[in-house]
Amino acid sequence: MIEALTEWFRNITFLQIIDFVGTFAFAISGIRLASAKRFDWFGAYVVGAATAIGGGTLRDVMLDVPVFWMHDGFYLSCTAVALLWVIIFRKYLINMHSTFFIFDAVGLALFTVVGIQKTIDCGLPIWVGIVMGAMTGAAGGVIRDVLINEVPLIFRKEIYAMACVVGGVVFGLCHIIGMPTMVTHLACGAAVFLTRVLAVKYQICLPTLRPEED
Amino acid sequence: MIEALTEWFRNITFLQIIDFVGTFAFAISGIRLASAKRFDWFGAYVVGAATAIGGGTLRDVMLDVPVFWMHDGFYLSCTAVALLWVIIFRKYLINMHSTFFIFDAVGLALFTVVGIQKTIDCGLPIWVGIVMGAMTGAAGGVIRDVLINEVPLIFRKEIYAMACVVGGVVFGLCHIIGMPTMVTHLACGAAVFLTRVLAVKYQICLPTLRPEED
Amino acid sequence: MIEALTEWFRNITFLQIIDFVGTFAFAISGIRLASAKRFDWFGAYVVGAATAIGGGTLRDVMLDVPVFWMHDGFYLSCTAVALLWVIIFRKYLINMHSTFFIFDAVGLALFTVVGIQKTIDCGLPIWVGIVMGAMTGAAGGVIRDVLINEVPLIFRKEIYAMACVVGGVVFGLCHIIGMPTMVTHLACGAAVFLTRVLAVKYQICLPTLRPEED
Repeated sequence: MIEALTEWFRNITFLQIIDFVGTFAFAISGIRLASAKRFDWFGAYVVGAATAIGGGTLRDVMLDVPVFWMHDGFYLSCTAVALLWVIIFRKYLINMHSTFFIFDAVGLALFTVVGIQKTIDCGLPIWVGIVMGAMTGAAGGVIRDVLINEVPLIFRKEIYAMACVVGGVVFGLCHIIGMPTMVTHLACGAAVFLTRVLAVKYQICLPTLRPEED
Repeated sequence: MIEALTEWFRNITFLQIIDFVGTFAFAISGIRLASAKRFDWFGAYVVGAATAIGGGTLRDVMLDVPVFWMHDGFYLSCTAVALLWVIIFRKYLINMHSTFFIFDAVGLALFTVVGIQKTIDCGLPIWVGIVMGAMTGAAGGVIRDVLINEVPLIFRKEIYAMACVVGGVVFGLCHIIGMPTMVTHLACGAAVFLTRVLAVKYQICLPTLRPEED
Repeated sequence: MIEALTEWFRNITFLQIIDFVGTFAFAISGIRLASAKRFDWFGAYVVGAATAIGGGTLRDVMLDVPVFWMHDGFYLSCTAVALLWVIIFRKYLINMHSTFFIFDAVGLALFTVVGIQKTIDCGLPIWVGIVMGAMTGAAGGVIRDVLINEVPLIFRKEIYAMACVVGGVVFGLCHIIGMPTMVTHLACGAAVFLTRVLAVKYQICLPTLRPEED
């Protein structure tokens, strides 16, 4: 009994750390782009929060389930920490580039897994889960770019949301062959993380659509 | 009994054809604009899907009913076909201009009818139906333009969403005088389609608001 | 009994006047910016409506309660009056600047109070109420700026949404010490209004985040 509790506690803590890392990295990416546009602290906070929780909010509203961040102060607090971080360590952020990239990929992996699992728990088919997983992971970045009035980055740069789709397919395969939930989650998360890291390392892009007059 | 089934089958098929035509045309319009901005395939697919299903998604979320495309793989498949179409026939798209225009007008008509009927089925008054009909028909195009970072076209060009409103008023009149549902739907759809086609043929625009300093 | 009714009538009327004033001012701000972009009447109406009811719509969708404007034709009618007003009095609008500013601040105060109360009525904690109050007051302006393809003003100019947060904190304090609802509402509204007016009078801005290369 005590062992089970300890085990449960360990799992929670590990998940919470990943959740913090991901939320923090997403919020940082929003706040940094807001600072490049000379937003004030409030504007930067909103853009950071939208990046971190926008995808999950869209997912929850579409699934018609309670919006996750309203029931846990963690996410908005985490965004506040990210804002403080950017204010204090502004000049050193550029040196933390690789760290933030890894954090971001970890967040992308976690958010995808959470998005797919939540969708399946609603009784929807796995293909909807894949769509909602990608939305959980990538829609926040799209909302961020809309708010700072730029063309969304993920529609043009290296594979980002496609990594969520790859992870989603892995999730679906594990799901169909009846793997345990924990294994399915780890395999999906690893697929997202690796796809993303390899895509950036080898600059793998999807083909670009050329304008019609070309 | 068999006759009824055949009749039902015919209706379904006809509706499905219109639904395909409309969804396809909407998705194509999103994908073409995305290609003009050199989006990759994924970005183009997202913009195409947002154009095709964005209006209906907004409607369903606001009406608090299940989001339509999550319960029928048809819509996202149809967007995939549209993406393939643009990739393969890129150089010939310009020659299909009139066809796509007609397809788009057909889609606008159908989406308006569906939007109004769904709203009324929720027990909301007809004026809300007219708003939701126009949203179903035209909001996808607005989301598309936001995603490609352009000022929404329908706020400045020929009558587009106003065609939905005209159709909505026709729907309301038929509804009030107690016409059968089928007649109401046909009259509404025809009104949307004709208004749109005539507006483009005769370049009918709404008056423009002039800036205050003029 | 008759006295109670008269009193009730007075309250309603007073609230309705404030509601009209706020909705009108918000709609006007959207329509004026749309006119600067040469939108047509329909586009201007949509932007005006999005400014006036966008924040509340987002709130209601996230809280999963019926969207307020669908159950009361007042808000869309009010936006129509605002459109007529801009069309007719276009050249004199610039002289009404101070009036609109006060109207807008009144609307901001009311919308904040309504947003917080509605959130608390859903059984959510006060900090969610503060977020939703600020969203009710300020998200409409963000949607407006996204639709006209500009960087949202409230992320860079004088204190606007922060006034809602200040009011929200006042609401929370009153709530915790058990003040009557009416007093809580008035104190919150007054805090929003005063913060906004003083911020503009003394040009109080939040600190701006500087770009990293500075």
